[in-house]
Amino acid sequence: MATGIIKPSNISGFNELLPEEKLVEDRFLNRIKSIYELHGFTPIETAAVEMLETLEVEGEITREIFLVSRKVHDAGESSEAKLALHYDLTVPFARYTAQNFDKLSFPFRRYQIQKSWRGERAQEGRAREFYQCDIDIIARDNLPLSCDAEILTVVDKVLSTLEIGKHLIRVNNRKILHGFYSSFGLNEATRVQVIGAVDKLAKIGESGVTKELAKLGVSSEIAQKILDFCKRKASPADLSAKMSDLKVDSQLYAEGLAELSKVLELVPEKNRGSILIDFSLARGLDYYTGLILETYLVDHMNIGSVCGGGRYDDLASRFTKFKLPGVGVSVGLTRIMSAVVSKKLANFDKRVPTKVLVSVYSEEQRKRCNEVAEQLRSLNVSTEVYFSDAKLGKQIEYADKKGIQYILFINAETGAMEVKDINTKQQSPLNNLEEWASKI
Amino acid sequence: MATGIIKPSNISGFNELLPEEKLVEDRFLNRIKSIYELHGFTPIETAAVEMLETLEVEGEITREIFLVSRKVHDAGESSEAKLALHYDLTVPFARYTAQNFDKLSFPFRRYQIQKSWRGERAQEGRAREFYQCDIDIIARDNLPLSCDAEILTVVDKVLSTLEIGKHLIRVNNRKILHGFYSSFGLNEATRVQVIGAVDKLAKIGESGVTKELAKLGVSSEIAQKILDFCKRKASPADLSAKMSDLKVDSQLYAEGLAELSKVLELVPEKNRGSILIDFSLARGLDYYTGLILETYLVDHMNIGSVCGGGRYDDLASRFTKFKLPGVGVSVGLTRIMSAVVSKKLANFDKRVPTKVLVSVYSEEQRKRCNEVAEQLRSLNVSTEVYFSDAKLGKQIEYADKKGIQYILFINAETGAMEVKDINTKQQSPLNNLEEWASKI
Repeated sequence: MATGIIKPSNISGFNELLPEEKLVEDRFLNRIKSIYELHGFTPIETAAVEMLETLEVEGEITREIFLVSRKVHDAGESSEAKLALHYDLTVPFARYTAQNFDKLSFPFRRYQIQKSWRGERAQEGRAREFYQCDIDIIARDNLPLSCDAEILTVVDKVLSTLEIGKHLIRVNNRKILHGFYSSFGLNEATRVQVIGAVDKLAKIGESGVTKELAKLGVSSEIAQKILDFCKRKASPADLSAKMSDLKVDSQLYAEGLAELSKVLELVPEKNRGSILIDFSLARGLDYYTGLILETYLVDHMNIGSVCGGGRYDDLASRFTKFKLPGVGVSVGLTRIMSAVVSKKLANFDKRVPTKVLVSVYSEEQRKRCNEVAEQLRSLNVSTEVYFSDAKLGKQIEYADKKGIQYILFINAETGAMEVKDINTKQQSPLNNLEEWASKI
Repeated sequence: MATGIIKPSNISGFNELLPEEKLVEDRFLNRIKSIYELHGFTPIETAAVEMLETLEVEGEITREIFLVSRKVHDAGESSEAKLALHYDLTVPFARYTAQNFDKLSFPFRRYQIQKSWRGERAQEGRAREFYQCDIDIIARDNLPLSCDAEILTVVDKVLSTLEIGKHLIRVNNRKILHGFYSSFGLNEATRVQVIGAVDKLAKIGESGVTKELAKLGVSSEIAQKILDFCKRKASPADLSAKMSDLKVDSQLYAEGLAELSKVLELVPEKNRGSILIDFSLARGLDYYTGLILETYLVDHMNIGSVCGGGRYDDLASRFTKFKLPGVGVSVGLTRIMSAVVSKKLANFDKRVPTKVLVSVYSEEQRKRCNEVAEQLRSLNVSTEVYFSDAKLGKQIEYADKKGIQYILFINAETGAMEVKDINTKQQSPLNNLEEWASKI
């Protein structure tokens, strides 16, 4: 039926991994899950779709939403709710929490690893379908700063466990920004816009930001003070020393600075090394109210932030009257993976999880081969029995191609076993399966 | 902002699990993955969306497809390809294989665990969003029967590992059906329709099937023979004995019977116990060409088949000119989970992965608590430090509510540790963290 062949092609922005790449992604996913679970975060999973009204948040109109509709009911029917794919995991999490409020106990510490979808123009690192690995801690009414510290700790652990080079965690506190800007008499609405303008610093430069600030009625003198402030950076150890020269007449500023100090103090020493306090960090999204953070791969700054998050006063105000402060972070695994693939930051030699290929001399021998494979599997060794009794050379080539390290041969007459290590090319007798399995 | 509150509600057919249920689902997912990987299947993941033309397979029009479109480009633009959510993992797998043909090596053994979406009317066990856990082995040109046996073996292992009661694997072979029906002179097109009619036996009964067969021009005498044949059942051990009385004049029939015997012989003894050869099994989908199988939970037959699959001569003929025979199965995890939840087939006491809650007497003590927690985590014990220094009773209640078994107390003055087991209510001194961690 060659006539009806559909040429399969990629859909722009919906990238798929080859098996050797997917194995790396799965290893990353497992390590991230493991860290989340070791910290007692519990998994949840929400539907891929939400009601459109749930997703249409004010200020979020720039995110291009994918609508979902049933094919059979095209004909102008409107009896069904309008649905759309979620564009992040925060809104679904807020909705889920409000919906199941009585069945959850607080603080609620959840992780959520799922795909999200955004109809942005596809470009490197900006996929339309992407994995997010989120954690959040939310509480009723009050959430102590120790939770912010735990989130930072977990972020540091996650980036370290991936073994893809050094990372940098930039942190700031929205109260510091609001406090500093309010010391110039700027009102809240203007401050929010100032934060938005400063957020573009890397993109539009100092002169660009000055122009935007002028439009907001900020004098060039104050604009300069704001830009100077943004240049300040500090490590957790020298934060107070670096800021002692600056006198800011704002209670909020002092509060923010104290919060940040407290949070950093609660991060274990060994997880503090990658943290940089950076007052230019603003985070475009406007719901953060305290700590904000962004993370970069030091050798690949150009791919942008690979995870971001912070603290918000009230997560689910759109869905419930209860006040739910929270702190959380989202790890952008797809962006990380696209760097890992394009810059070869991992080993892609293995194309299967298989450790051992049991070679088959003849079909009469298959039952015995299956038995040996079953023994190995019961010892937790991933094992495949070759699917035919093709020439041995072909079987070895297959193992080599797929990155299977060991080939096991069973002598058809004596039943004696030998094993060949594809890496060292050495072949040796195998007398004790159990002992060998525990070694490899 | 109580005025703007959106009441969150379920979207019909898109069911979400509570944390205690999701933990069970995750345990199932991990066990299924583990069995797949122990057999050397490699994971792949395809995009949630496909081009609509990829999904519109002839004969599949009854499946209601969810279309996906970008919100911003509503205004009648048609420059972008029409997209839709995939309704199974087989079509995307075929497309992926054809697309990456040169980069894959064959036999290609993949597993794929993802959600699929169908716009069917929602009802119990028929979700619109559901997990499928698929494995397939595909080869170029020829695929030996030992692969069919491996698929059956893996299915038996998967259903056993979930520990949700007995299961039944019904098997048949399409060649047996075609051969038997052709012995009455029925042509292929009619035979396909006969298979479709017989597939409805459980729903419409014998008289219903007889009526449908009459419409296809099948005489009542032959219809009776077909129905009698459908009543035949056998275990792997007595297949040939049970069929020896029946003389069927068809090469295809003999071939099918020999194939089925051969496949069952290659399934290890210990994985054969749940297999029933059932000639009424037809599988509605028409692409199977050899082995077909369906699996049921014996104590919950009413929820229908929880996994199905079989062998096909040519997987990807719509996408490539290469011939790719395959055999595979899809485990319907969401259907299984809906039975597990509604019939309480698992323990839902744990609402978090956490094993140990470290209690906090006062905020001064938090650093020490964090250190102990870190030690436990390094020993692979999921540990949470209580988020405040609330009264001990409240901390114990929290652990109890979430199903955290152990609470660890650190004496504020001496630093001595004690641990309370919530199940036994016993509290005892804890001198060696490492030793204790290895025990729990």
